[in-house]
This record gives sequence, C-alpha cells and structure tokens, in this order.
Amino acid sequence: MDREQLAELLAQLARGELGVDAALDRLRALPFEDLGFARLDHHRALRNGFGEVVFGAGKAPDELAAIVARFVDASGRVLVTRLDPDAAATLALAVPGLTYHARARIAVRADRPSPKLDGTCLVVSAGTADLPVAEEAALCAEFLGARVERLVDVGVSGIHRLLAEHARLADAAVIIVVAGMEGALPSVVGGLVSAPVIAVPTSVGYGTSFGGTAALLAMLNSCAAGLVVVNIDNGFGAAAAAIRILQRGT
Amino acid sequence: MDREQLAELLAQLARGELGVDAALDRLRALPFEDLGFARLDHHRALRNGFGEVVFGAGKAPDELAAIVARFVDASGRVLVTRLDPDAAATLALAVPGLTYHARARIAVRADRPSPKLDGTCLVVSAGTADLPVAEEAALCAEFLGARVERLVDVGVSGIHRLLAEHARLADAAVIIVVAGMEGALPSVVGGLVSAPVIAVPTSVGYGTSFGGTAALLAMLNSCAAGLVVVNIDNGFGAAAAAIRILQRGT
Amino acid sequence: MDREQLAELLAQLARGELGVDAALDRLRALPFEDLGFARLDHHRALRNGFGEVVFGAGKAPDELAAIVARFVDASGRVLVTRLDPDAAATLALAVPGLTYHARARIAVRADRPSPKLDGTCLVVSAGTADLPVAEEAALCAEFLGARVERLVDVGVSGIHRLLAEHARLADAAVIIVVAGMEGALPSVVGGLVSAPVIAVPTSVGYGTSFGGTAALLAMLNSCAAGLVVVNIDNGFGAAAAAIRILQRGT
Amino acid sequence: MDREQLAELLAQLARGELGVDAALDRLRALPFEDLGFARLDHHRALRNGFGEVVFGAGKAPDELAAIVARFVDASGRVLVTRLDPDAAATLALAVPGLTYHARARIAVRADRPSPKLDGTCLVVSAGTADLPVAEEAALCAEFLGARVERLVDVGVSGIHRLLAEHARLADAAVIIVVAGMEGALPSVVGGLVSAPVIAVPTSVGYGTSFGGTAALLAMLNSCAAGLVVVNIDNGFGAAAAAIRILQRGT
Amino acid sequence: MDREQLAELLAQLARGELGVDAALDRLRALPFEDLGFARLDHHRALRNGFGEVVFGAGKAPDELAAIVARFVDASGRVLVTRLDPDAAATLALAVPGLTYHARARIAVRADRPSPKLDGTCLVVSAGTADLPVAEEAALCAEFLGARVERLVDVGVSGIHRLLAEHARLADAAVIIVVAGMEGALPSVVGGLVSAPVIAVPTSVGYGTSFGGTAALLAMLNSCAAGLVVVNIDNGFGAAAAAIRILQRGT
Amino acid sequence: MDREQLAELLAQLARGELGVDAALDRLRALPFEDLGFARLDHHRALRNGFGEVVFGAGKAPDELAAIVARFVDASGRVLVTRLDPDAAATLALAVPGLTYHARARIAVRADRPSPKLDGTCLVVSAGTADLPVAEEAALCAEFLGARVERLVDVGVSGIHRLLAEHARLADAAVIIVVAGMEGALPSVVGGLVSAPVIAVPTSVGYGTSFGGTAALLAMLNSCAAGLVVVNIDNGFGAAAAAIRILQRGT
Amino acid sequence: MDREQLAELLAQLARGELGVDAALDRLRALPFEDLGFARLDHHRALRNGFGEVVFGAGKAPDELAAIVARFVDASGRVLVTRLDPDAAATLALAVPGLTYHARARIAVRADRPSPKLDGTCLVVSAGTADLPVAEEAALCAEFLGARVERLVDVGVSGIHRLLAEHARLADAAVIIVVAGMEGALPSVVGGLVSAPVIAVPTSVGYGTSFGGTAALLAMLNSCAAGLVVVNIDNGFGAAAAAIRILQRGT
Amino acid sequence: MDREQLAELLAQLARGELGVDAALDRLRALPFEDLGFARLDHHRALRNGFGEVVFGAGKAPDELAAIVARFVDASGRVLVTRLDPDAAATLALAVPGLTYHARARIAVRADRPSPKLDGTCLVVSAGTADLPVAEEAALCAEFLGARVERLVDVGVSGIHRLLAEHARLADAAVIIVVAGMEGALPSVVGGLVSAPVIAVPTSVGYGTSFGGTAALLAMLNSCAAGLVVVNIDNGFGAAAAAIRILQRGT
Repeated sequence: MDREQLAELLAQLARGELGVDAALDRLRALPFEDLGFARLDHHRALRNGFGEVVFGAGKAPDELAAIVARFVDASGRVLVTRLDPDAAATLALAVPGLTYHARARIAVRADRPSPKLDGTCLVVSAGTADLPVAEEAALCAEFLGARVERLVDVGVSGIHRLLAEHARLADAAVIIVVAGMEGALPSVVGGLVSAPVIAVPTSVGYGTSFGGTAALLAMLNSCAAGLVVVNIDNGFGAAAAAIRILQRGT
Repeated sequence: MDREQLAELLAQLARGELGVDAALDRLRALPFEDLGFARLDHHRALRNGFGEVVFGAGKAPDELAAIVARFVDASGRVLVTRLDPDAAATLALAVPGLTYHARARIAVRADRPSPKLDGTCLVVSAGTADLPVAEEAALCAEFLGARVERLVDVGVSGIHRLLAEHARLADAAVIIVVAGMEGALPSVVGGLVSAPVIAVPTSVGYGTSFGGTAALLAMLNSCAAGLVVVNIDNGFGAAAAAIRILQRGT
Repeated sequence: MDREQLAELLAQLARGELGVDAALDRLRALPFEDLGFARLDHHRALRNGFGEVVFGAGKAPDELAAIVARFVDASGRVLVTRLDPDAAATLALAVPGLTYHARARIAVRADRPSPKLDGTCLVVSAGTADLPVAEEAALCAEFLGARVERLVDVGVSGIHRLLAEHARLADAAVIIVVAGMEGALPSVVGGLVSAPVIAVPTSVGYGTSFGGTAALLAMLNSCAAGLVVVNIDNGFGAAAAAIRILQRGT
Repeated sequence: MDREQLAELLAQLARGELGVDAALDRLRALPFEDLGFARLDHHRALRNGFGEVVFGAGKAPDELAAIVARFVDASGRVLVTRLDPDAAATLALAVPGLTYHARARIAVRADRPSPKLDGTCLVVSAGTADLPVAEEAALCAEFLGARVERLVDVGVSGIHRLLAEHARLADAAVIIVVAGMEGALPSVVGGLVSAPVIAVPTSVGYGTSFGGTAALLAMLNSCAAGLVVVNIDNGFGAAAAAIRILQRGT
Repeated sequence: MDREQLAELLAQLARGELGVDAALDRLRALPFEDLGFARLDHHRALRNGFGEVVFGAGKAPDELAAIVARFVDASGRVLVTRLDPDAAATLALAVPGLTYHARARIAVRADRPSPKLDGTCLVVSAGTADLPVAEEAALCAEFLGARVERLVDVGVSGIHRLLAEHARLADAAVIIVVAGMEGALPSVVGGLVSAPVIAVPTSVGYGTSFGGTAALLAMLNSCAAGLVVVNIDNGFGAAAAAIRILQRGT
Repeated sequence: MDREQLAELLAQLARGELGVDAALDRLRALPFEDLGFARLDHHRALRNGFGEVVFGAGKAPDELAAIVARFVDASGRVLVTRLDPDAAATLALAVPGLTYHARARIAVRADRPSPKLDGTCLVVSAGTADLPVAEEAALCAEFLGARVERLVDVGVSGIHRLLAEHARLADAAVIIVVAGMEGALPSVVGGLVSAPVIAVPTSVGYGTSFGGTAALLAMLNSCAAGLVVVNIDNGFGAAAAAIRILQRGT
Repeated sequence: MDREQLAELLAQLARGELGVDAALDRLRALPFEDLGFARLDHHRALRNGFGEVVFGAGKAPDELAAIVARFVDASGRVLVTRLDPDAAATLALAVPGLTYHARARIAVRADRPSPKLDGTCLVVSAGTADLPVAEEAALCAEFLGARVERLVDVGVSGIHRLLAEHARLADAAVIIVVAGMEGALPSVVGGLVSAPVIAVPTSVGYGTSFGGTAALLAMLNSCAAGLVVVNIDNGFGAAAAAIRILQRGT
Repeated sequence: MDREQLAELLAQLARGELGVDAALDRLRALPFEDLGFARLDHHRALRNGFGEVVFGAGKAPDELAAIVARFVDASGRVLVTRLDPDAAATLALAVPGLTYHARARIAVRADRPSPKLDGTCLVVSAGTADLPVAEEAALCAEFLGARVERLVDVGVSGIHRLLAEHARLADAAVIIVVAGMEGALPSVVGGLVSAPVIAVPTSVGYGTSFGGTAALLAMLNSCAAGLVVVNIDNGFGAAAAAIRILQRGT
C-alpha cells in the first residue's frame, strides 16, 4: 500500500468513484491472506519472493502443509527451510512436486524459474561441518534469483587454501562466508575484497563455542571494515541479504 | 598484491629484468608502510578508502598524531573516530586542518572530496540518544563517498512517525538503522523496504540493556528477512558496509 | 486470615467463647490442605481461582492425579498447564471429565462456568510458532473469568497486518502480546493503545534467541512506556496478571 | 489519527471540501512536532501524559532544555527523569519553575494538577537503598494522576515488618514493589493480595547481583501468579504501567 | 596422615625401628586405595563418612559396581547418588542388598546404622517439584548420622503455610532449604531463625530460571544475614555441610 | 513474636486484662522501630546481633548517621561495613566513638564487649589482595562474639604454605576461606578438615575473573563435600554464617 | 610453501625452466587435496601429523569414510576423535583395520609407528568422570609421537593423593592436567613443577558447572604462573600443544 | 622440599643428627618467608624466577614497597606488573633503581642479568592498541631469560602484512600472539608454524567484545591444532608459559 496506491485511492474517493465506507474497507484490505492461524504476506512475495520462503520448524504438520499448498497454488513456488527428514516425508505426502535437500534440510518447488540477478553470489564455508548452513544459504539464494558459486573447506588454519582462490573471491558481487569454531574466516575474506561480505556464524563447535556464540562474537568484532552479520546458522537470512544487495544495480 | 601484479612481477623475473633476491624483496614489500608501532595499509586506502579511517580510542597521543599526519601527507584525507574532546584538542595541535564533530566524536580532514557514489544512504535513528552513533555512521559514509540523508527520532513506540516517512525509506539505495533500547526499529524498516538494511545496535539504555546487548539480540533475531547487523555502537562499520554495497552498480 | 477474621477470633476469645488453646489451633489452622507431598491453597482458590491452576510439569503422575482429583472434588474446577500428550492420557484415566487442548498442552474441567469479568482480554501473537503460548494464555484467562479474543500472526516485519486491526486493539480492556524472535510486537502495540499491555516472550527462535532471552530483553527495554513483562513462555502468568487487572473496575 | 478522524478526513475529501494533495498532507501531518533532533509526540501526551515524561540521561544539555521548554510552553507540565544534580542545575537555568527531587533524580513542573484517578497506588520498597527507584515510581505516578502511598524498608528477611502492614496492602488498587538484592519481596506481596502487582528490580547489591539481574530473575520466576515485571531501576515504567491499570475503571 | 602420625613415624625412624627407605614408603602409603581408575579415600570415610557417598552419574557401570562393592566389603555401608532407574537396576545385579529410592535417585546399603548426631536437621522444600533434591538431602543426611525432619510445599507465595510451622523451624539445629523458581524461601527462613541455614537452589523452573541460576542468584544475594549456599540441585552437598555443623557440639 | 508471646497475649485477652483493640495494637507492634526511611529490627539485634551490623554503601549520609546513632543509643554497639574513607570521615563527625579500619572499610563501636562463643573461627585468605574481604569477615566475626585467628597468603600455587599450617586448620571450629582468582583454596581446605568451611569468593582478578564469578563458580563446584558459599566479597555474610554455627554447642 | 620452495620456484622461472603461467599454476597448486566437500591438508600432515587427526563429529558418514580412507591410502595412518559407538561401527565397515577405544571415543589406525619424541608427556586427571577426555589426550599424544604416562583420580579435595606422586610430576617433560568441577588441579600442579602445564577443563559437573565453564574460568584465572588452557573437553588440542612443545629439544 | 631434601632430612634424623622436634620444625620451615601480610615464595624464585614477578595492582602502597624491597635485598631482581604511573612514582620513592615502562605499566630492576635461554620468543601483536599487553609479555619474558623479538600490527584483515613476515614466524622457538577484537590472529599463525603458539586475548574492543571475551572465545575455539590460551590481558602469564617451554631443551 504505497503512496501511489494511496493517492489513487483518495482520488477515486474525491471523484466519487468510491464511497467512504468502501474506501475504509480498501484501506483495511491490505495484501495479506488470513488462513486463521497464519496471515500469508503475498505483498512481500510479490516484491522480492521472501514471503515464499517458509520457516519449517515449530509449525504443526497440517498447518505447514496448508501454508505450503497455498503458495504452490498461488505461484507454483515455495521453499521450506529447517525441515527434518521426517517432516519432509510428511509434507511430501500432502504437497506433490517438492524436492528435498537433506544436508540443507530444505524442500523446494519452483514451477517457474526466478529471473536471474546480475553478479555472482559466492558462498564460502570454513569446514565440512559448516556445509549444511552454507547449502541453506546457497539454495535459498538460488531460489530467490541469484547465480551462486560455492567454495568449501577453506578455514583459516590453512590460510593458503583460501589465498589460492583469490581470483574467485575478487570476482564475486557479494560473498556469504559461513564459519563456526572461532569464526575468523569472514575477517580474512573481508580484508581481501571490496565487495559486500555477509558473515554467517554456525553452531559448529563444542564447549566454549556456546552454540555458535564464539563465532558470532568474532564476526561482530571483526577488524575488517564493513563486515555484516546475521544470526547463528541463519543461511536463509544471509541469502535474503544477498538478494537485497544484488537487486541494486540490476 | 593482486594476480596481475604477481603475473607482472613473475614476468619481469622471467625476462631477467629482476633478480631472484629482488623478486623476493618485492614479494615482501607489500603495500603497507611500517611506522614501527603501526603498519599503514595504503593498499586498503587505495581500494576503498577504509584505511583512511582511523580508530582513535586506545592509541597513544603521539602515535595517533603520527598516523594521522602520515595520511594527511599521503592523500590530504583522514577521518578519526572515537575521539573524545580532549584527545581531539591534542590532535588538533599536532595536525592542522581537522574539523571536529563533537556529537559524533569524529575529526576529519578531506582536502579533496571523494567521488560520489550513486544512490542515497539513509541513516535512520530511533531516539535522540542514538544520534552520536547515527552521526558517526553518516559522517563516515559521506567521507567514503555516499550521498547521505538522515531521519531521526522515529522509534517504534510511535510507529506513525516512521510510517509518515515511508516515501524516503522507499527511495533509499541502502538504509542504516540505528537503535538502542529494544532495537525493534530495523525489523519494522526491513519489512517496509526491499533495499539492503544495515542494523546498528547502540548502547543506549540501562539495566537489562546490558550495554546494547538487548538491541543487538533483537536485530540478530529479526523476523524481517535479510537484515544484517554490525557491532554495538559501530557507526563506522555500518558506513563501510553501505559503501561496499553502493560501490556495486556504480 | 485477614484483619476482620483475626478481630472476630480475638473477640470470641475475649468473650470466653473460645479457649486459648483453641484459639492457637485456629490461628494455625490456616486455609490450606496438606496432602503430605503438597499443600493445596484453597484460600487462593477462593480468592481468585489461581490456586485451581496446576503446573503439570515435573510432578509424579500419581501425585498430579491426586492434586487434580482433590480440586475436582472441592469445586468441580481445575486447569492443568504444561501437560504433554502422554501425561494427559495418563491423567485422563485417573480423573474423568477433562478436556485436553493439545496445542496449548492444557487439560481443563469446569463443571460450573466462572463469572465473566467486564472488558475484553485480547491475546495477540506474532507468528504461528507462538500460538502454543498464546493459547495457554487465552485458555487460562477464559478459565479464570475473562472474555477473550485472539489476534494471530501480526508480526512487525509486516506492520500493515497489525495496523489493519487497530480498532480491535483500541477496544480491548487489557492486551496480552505474545512474541518470540526479536520480541518487538509489544513495543508497537504499547505505542498504539493506552490499555495495560502484558508482554510474553516465547522461546521461539534459534541461535542468539537463547531460548527466548532475546525477546525477553527486547520487552524489558521497550521504549513504549508502561509495558510489563512475564517469564518466557509463561502464558498462564500473563493470564493471571490480566485477571488481576480485569477484577478492578468489575 | 484514529478511525473516526480518518473517516472524517475521507468524508471531507468525498464532499470536495478537501483536495487530494491536501488530504495526503493531512495524512502525513500526524500529531508530532519535529524539533530537528527530536519528534515530540503530543499525541501521546494528549492521551495519557506519558509523552510529558522525558528521559533526562544521555541528551545534550541544550537539546534537553529545548524539549523541556517546548512541553512547558505547550501544557505547563513536564517531568524529567534520570537527571543528576549537575544536569538539573544546568536545566534550571534554562527552564524556570522546575522542582528537583534529589533522591529520585527527577525535575518536575506541573502548572496544573493532573486529574486524580480512582484507587490508591501503593509503592512498597524493600530496603533504604531502593528508595531512589521507589521515589522515581512514586513521583511519576503522582505526576500522571495517581494517588500514591509509600511503604518502606519491609524486606523479606524480617517478614513481620511486611505482615504488620497487611491492611494497607489489601486496600491498594495497584501495588508497585521495588526490591534489589534477592528480589523476593514481590513474590510475598503477590501472594498476599489479589490486586495487580508490578515488580521493579533495582541495581542495589554487589557481586552476583550483577547490577540487578539477580533481582530481575527472581521476579520473572516468581511462584506468585500474575506478577509482572519492568526493567531494572525502571521506576517510571512501573508508574506508567500503574496508570494504564488505574485508568481502567475510572 | 595428621601431625601425630607424622611425629610417631619420625620417632620410629629416630629410634631405628624404621629405615629411611621404609619411612619414605610409609610417607607415600597414604590412606587411599588405588583401583586403577579410581583412588578410594578410606581416610575420608573413616573421618566423617563422606567418602562412602558415591556420585553415580558419569561412571561406567562396571567401574561403578567395583567402587560400590569395595565400600560394601570394607564397611557394609555405601550410598550412591544421581542414579537413574536403569543404572540402579544394573547396579543391583552386581551388588546385593541395595535399597533404591526412586524420587531421590539414591541407592543405599547400611549394614550398621551410623551413630546419631545431636540436634535435628530440618529439610524444608518450596514446591512439590523440589522434592527430589530435598529427598537427596534428607536421605544423605540420615545416612551420615543426622536426625532428619521434613517440611514440604511451603513456598513464599503462600507465606502463611510457612509461618504456621514456625515452631518446627525454631527447634531445628540446622536447616536445609530447597527451592527452585525465584529461590526466595531461604531468605524468609533465614530471617525467622538463628540456626545455620543452608540454601539449595534447584533447577525447577523454565525460561529465565536458566536451569536454577535464578534461584541460586537470589540465595547468594539474600538480605538474610549468614545464609550459605551450595550448587544447584546439590542435595548431597547440603547434607554434608549439615553434618559438618552437627558434628560440632556432639 | 514467638509462640510463647502469642500464647501470653491471648491469655491476657482471655483473662480480660487486655481489650480487643489493644490486642490488635500489640499484634501490630512488632519489635521494629520505624525511622521513616528505615525500620530498625531490634528483634534481630536482640537475637544474634546481626541487626547491629549496618551495610554502609548506598545510604544517604544523614540517614546513615541517624541509623548508626540510634543503635549507639540503644546498645552502645554498631558496626558499619562497606564504608569508604570519605563516608567514614563524615560519619565520624555525626557519631562519636567510632573506630575506622581502612583496609576492611569498617567503622565500629562496641561500648560493651560481646560474650565470646566457644571455638575458634579461622579466617584463611589466598593472596594479599584478598585481605580487605578477609578483614571484613574477621572484624565482623569478632564483633559478633567469635574468637578469630587469621592465616594469610596461602594460595594453592604454593601448596606447601598451606600444608605447613595444617595443625591450625585442624584446630578450628569453623573456617572461613577467602579467595579470588581461581578460587581453589576452599576445595583444598575442605578436603583437609572436617569442620564447617565457608567459602568467600572475592572480586580479585581481571579479565575472565568477571568480578569474582570465576572464583564463585569454582567454590560452588567444589569436589570437597559440604563446602558452603556466600556472595562475592561478602565477608560479613561469612562471619554471620560462622556465628550461626558457633552458637550451636555454646 | 615455505621461503626455500618459493626461492627455488622463482629461480626456476628466472632460469627459464618454468614459464609464467606454469609458475602461477604452481603457486596456486598448494599442498592440499580437494575431495569436493573437504580439502585435505597433506602439508600439515607432513609437518607434524596433526592433519591425520580427523574430528569425527558432525560429518556425514560417507564423507567421513572417504576422508579416513584417503589418509589410510596416503600414509597408513589416521586417528578419528569424537566418534560415538554407532558411527564407529559404520566407519569400521568402510575402512578396515581401525581400532576403537570406547571410553575415549577414538578410532585409530597406525600402520607405521610414529617416531618417539624425547621426554614424557604425563596426563593427569582429577576424577574418574574426567577419564574420557584424559584418554583422548593420551591416545592422541601417543599417535603423534609422545611417550605418555597416566596419573588418575588425584583431585584436590584429597591433596595427599597428588602429593604422593610428586616424583612423577617432577620427571615429566610436559604435563596435561584434565579436570572438571572446580578445575583446581592444574593450579596445584602448576605450583609444584617447572615444566609446561596444559590445562584441559572438562564438562564434568552439573548446575553451575555450566558445561565446564566453571573449570575453564578457574584455569584461566590460575595463580600458578604460566598455566595454559585449551577448550572444554579438548583432549586432542592439549595433545597437539604437547607435541608442539616436545618437538622442541628433540 | 623435594624428595632428595626429604630423604636427607630423614637420614639426619635416623643418624641422630636431628631430633624429632627439630625435624618437625624443619618440615614446617618450608622455603617461604612470612612478612605478616604476604608469604614470599623464594622457592619459586629460586626455581624459575616467577616469584620475583609481583602483581602490582590491588596491593597497599606500603606493602607493595615492602615486598619489592625484600626481593631487591634478596636477589637484586624484581619486576612489578600492572603498575599505573602514580603507583610507580610512589614505589620509586621507596625502592631505588627501578625502571618504569609506561606503555606496559611495568617497573623492573635487574642488578644481574638472567642467563639467556636458547631459542627466540617472538611476540606478535595484531593492532597498535594491543601493544601494552604485548609489551608486558615481551618485558616479562626478557626478565625471565628469553631472547625476545617483536612483530607488530599484523592483524588478519590485512593478511599480507603477516605473510610477509613468514620467515620470522618460522624461526621462532615459541610464539606469543596478542590480539583483541575478533582474536583471529593466533589461528592464522598457528596454521603457519609448528612451534608452540601461546594466544593472549586482549580487552581491546568495544560492545560485543565484552572486555576481551570475544577474542578469548575465538582463541579457545581455534581450528589451529594445539593453540593454547591464557587469561585476557595476561601478558605475564604468556611470558611465564614461554619460559616453561624454552627451559626444555636448554
């Protein structure tokens, strides 16, 4: 309901094409759909597709199925994150045509491809245990329209593995760096490139990792200027941030 | 020392224009300058100007003056953050031509303007107490080449103040949102726009604010997809992130 | 055992209608009932019914059944919170007539309805994953005598969904706002209405949500004046607070 | 800008009494006033007076004076919290007629008394060191229209001191309980009365008090049903909550 | 190996009854027994019986059985804490004569009773969910020689339940107070009696209970002078402290 | 107001020696004195003298002086803790006869000595920086009637310094062990003796000491059975606990 | 890729034995091997064998098997840590010749023994529950070339058990001390010897142990000079540190 | 008091050269000196000089002077850490011949040089603000006998600055790496060398640095095998650890 729509609405009212009550109704009829237990934000889906990404954890199976089915009906497109294998199997019975990516715990259906944005989104991960989060980021970014490349297992304790890939780092339009443990990789990458770098701490580690807090703090305190951070294990969030960035200049 | 420089160096060596020892020296002579207590990274300054921003806190006065003077000599440009009034007065005696912004605690000298990047960087702040951090972000972004606009005192407890400025939000290429207390403003802004939104928690608050931790956690857990976050009170970091983003598409 | 009862007791003693030992006994015979492993506070139940709400978690099955049965015998009314499905099934075998609400994890029996208090208690929830806690609050408030309405899935990242329901917010006598993640919804609601607003953080989230701590901190640091907060996931506590408020003016 | 105002605005537009551009302007001319560095929310002041309470800490002296003066001009009423003696002296020079309460760190001017709400707000404090916060609560509640009584130094380690005042507890319409250290007093009070009880943890204590966190946690985990909590040392917040409650039934 | 034993050892050496090497051996032959994976401290068992209490969690089943059997052989007495039902069943197969207390998760065998210490150890618990820890304390104290009484379900939200038992509180020689949630009960008890009060926080609670941390902090910050605290859920520790106290004056 | 007093009161009422109103007054006239801002608990002072110990920090100078003067008038005895030198000088002007112990930050006046309790209270401290807390404990314990001995600078990194004093440890009736840093000393002492051991963590340390939290946690997790703990830097609390213990058997 | 290798590479280039493109390739062809999902760092394995130690937790079974098999093929040597029994059984099916140590959760194959380093590595553990971590340290150190001795169950609450083994402590070239609970053992050991002492906190404990944090903090705040610490439960890390130390002087 | 001394003592006793009482006295006369408020551990000083390093903070000026003077008298050698300029000036008046290093806050006197240990101790620091801690480490290590080199301002955001110094890293016998902020430098260094690496987190940073906790956690969670860590800002501790390591092989 942006300024133009509001101006048009008011103009219709001023021209007598719309009554006061109808105008009030229109003002209330904002672009979401009420399922009773959820209000689907088609407005957001129209704008950048984020609304078509559903957080799968913590939803009742039948409600999740209803939400997913509604998006499939509306646009033929939906992506569900944080879906463990059992929930995925249940969901697949209710909604046909979903593809399940086990490592990333993502189910996806995209009847029509999204238009590709300019520039590459490079997803860099520090260790093999970080791959689930990195894959969540990569699959989400692809679903949302990015061209995605991957660079894996380049943690800082073997810094030469990263430096050997300097060219790919330099070519990326935006870089997502996924790391657990001490979370140092984004700082090193941030110092090597001038593109936006989105750091994703993971819960990989034990003891004083405190479920990814150590990595998060390292990223927030990075000496690399302009590093930005999302929540622990939030691969989708990093993908959405990358899309916001890639949309500019497209 | 990028791939091209390395190729050229190796080519000179291969052509006999350079001896092995000299090549080794060159490989070690990377583009930083050693002041004994600091290694100025002119490479970074050349690339995006971040190197010309100096963190003023915790440096000995004479060493700070030496660093600042060196940048002034090299490029006529420097910006010093986290500089309290006493330190600013001391620095002004050693390095002429600095302008001091008291609220933002920033001293700056820019003999030549930076080329302006396309698109507007909008700096939004929640309360008057957040203004020092917002100003740090705004002044740094301007120094680094952004066109900056400001929107102040639009905290979520009076949501109409923010909604009244919807048009300015929609027009921005990148938005920095600065908030302390409960840190909810970036979530609301992130839901209103599709541009990149950089959230900056501030240490404004008391008690369970825990020095800005409450605001930080709120931003990291935002339900607005694709919000990114920097360290508490890190106005410069947000500016640098905005510059990384604005450079794309320019 | 309030002042009037004490005065009467003393008067009986002064009039010789009661001996010293009997008076001492009466002073000790305070209105609770000792089951050996629990002391049922019928006094509290008489006053406002809170005593008839039993916290179901962490009690041995037989002891829980004994407590519930005792309340059913005494008043025909009891509500058990935090009861997982297995425990509910076990309890149902021991005490007939219980209705189990799976999402809210509540078992309830109310042979006589509670007298309705004036004014509406509106229970607002941010996301679908917050519904279990919201339902706990709503069912408890209804059991304790409130007229309850529900408003679901109106999180702040799509602020228009909330604003569209402004009229219902304005009409409520007391509002319970349930939110996890960044916990921003109560701040926005608190700024829109003048009624009491009780904020309930939920453990919905992951990573730096720290089990609901992020939402809790946001609510405690709200810039909306006069917001009050209860423990994480404490739907019953919010309902009890609403009852305390609604009783005034009734 | 409530529904009635919006309906009226639209009606004027429909009747041709207002042009589209003017209507748009009116929609943007929401009831706040822009001082450049602050947006005074007169709307909130009109509604319940909360807007006339200014948080004094962390504002530049000249800006604080401008805000305070603006409220004095508009309504002859303002209350400033968290004002240390030096800031109070500076403010008194700029704005005449302020009364400063040193213990509560509050400056106040009320040219016209606020209409008194029905019922008593009882402010209970555990120890003498809790008095500054208790006084902040009491003075704010009085400024906002409550009849306030005080009950001091009744901490739980001498429980008879509290029980001796049972009658005053029972008579109150709403009770604010202020306690540091172990923060147990609100639980005991909450078990004695059926009125709403607002718990305020204070930063009184040392070591594992962690600046009031121990008291806060005790209050959030209270076994007294329906206890509600505000931020550490937030006397104003408790007063505002009490006002929200007292307004009901008035 | 106390001073007297050392003096005697040296005297034997001086009298030539013992050679230097033998003396060295004796000095090394301190009163513990090496099982390879554990060194049983019979010295401690001789002194106050603490050594006969075995922490059952985290030990391999066969090693636990070996330790327990060794104590049974040596003294016919052993008590195992933190033993879940499965482990208890396994242990019972290996060591006959053990009695298992399910609520307290304790297995015990005491072929000869311990001599009773003077004075009563009163174990007070706040809620029914605190009973497992209270029972651990009570059973351990009895095993170690105390006369134990129990007082249950006297939490502070119904303070009259506690005050009604004032006489039993006043008669105890040492009081162990077990409470979860807000942990306020020990403060109230500590203010009512002059005997030593040992506070045991329990992990009963949820959300901001943080596994008993809220209760622990409340107890450490108690305004009741001279309250002492043990680790969360550490019923055995409280019992051992009570024994140390009761031994004095016996 | 114990059971006997209550029985006597009721008996007087039954015998007509006391009217109902007078009895009610007596029931309310509990043994504390109301100074307006503080309620002195003479009852507690009568019982064990704890009430005569005043926490000096955070009280207004005139109120502190009034409280101290009232105790001097009543009993000629008072001890003030946490009194910095400036506050001590101010207090000395208002109340004559106080002796100030600078290291312990204690002011004391004891016109009549307290009767000495049987048994020695040994105060052991780990490092020289722990001496202020150790002295607070020692002076408070002496004021409250204990015979106190001191053992200083016997930290665990030079364990022979402690073992050399084994005899003094063995002779003590109760031991207070004061330690900062890693807080290991109480565990070692607790393993050497069978007397009650009260552990006092201090805020001595830096970095991950977190203001004494490291020492506190070590003490709470001690493998020495029956160790009890008080708040960080709480020398008075340890002394009060020791008095509670020494009173038994006296 | 050390200085000598670089010099040789450049010399070849200078002599024309290598073209520019080939040199660039060589510079990128750093000594790791890309399995797609992991980059094995044979360089590190060549240097000190650390690369042959694989962290078993959090890796997909087939990928773990591929990594392990690759090391077996390359050198006949591999050690896998954090391998639970089920994963070990699965791995054993894929890679023959592994020996599984259940307590330490380690699988190992060493077709050729590692050359033994001079000096003994003594692994000291405080309690029987610390043995799994101690064994991880001991087995890793042996695999990496150390001569290892073990000293078990010598916690500080029975300090004589440790002192009786003084000679073994004094003879060790490097000491690893493993302790949970209060983590005091390394401080005592560090005060007894002049050799390097590596402290390993374990997650043994409950309540305020906070998963080993209490022990970690104690070790970081040790008053024993020169104690060094690794992550909670990080037996491998301690072993690797010991190897770094033993390599010196060999 | 090692085994040899004990054997000799016992032999003297056996030969009648020493009486039992004298032997007991000797056993108690362990090698420390009692100043009343401190027990100087000359034993430790004799062994490795650690005892001659005095922690200057938190000691009373006269007691600090007495301790320092005693060491000067005994050996002509002492080093005082954590000494702010005012305390240093006061100390200089009491003890002549001290040299004060302002940045490191160290006062030192060494009438005789310590014998130099083999191998270089390289002290690497990430930023200029880390220099005080790095200097504390370097000066302490030199005082204790190490040959020290320094490498400054080589933080990971400009990784080429570090790689350019690869040769110096490779040559060191032990490396101390000092870093605040995200604390990533030790991980990178640890991956480049096989020598022991001691990581020192500093409190340099703000916001989520939490006083150095972020850096500490990063170091504890390092993916570089065998990294060891000391307390935040503990330059002396790192030096002492380096000395323990360098002594081996010397």
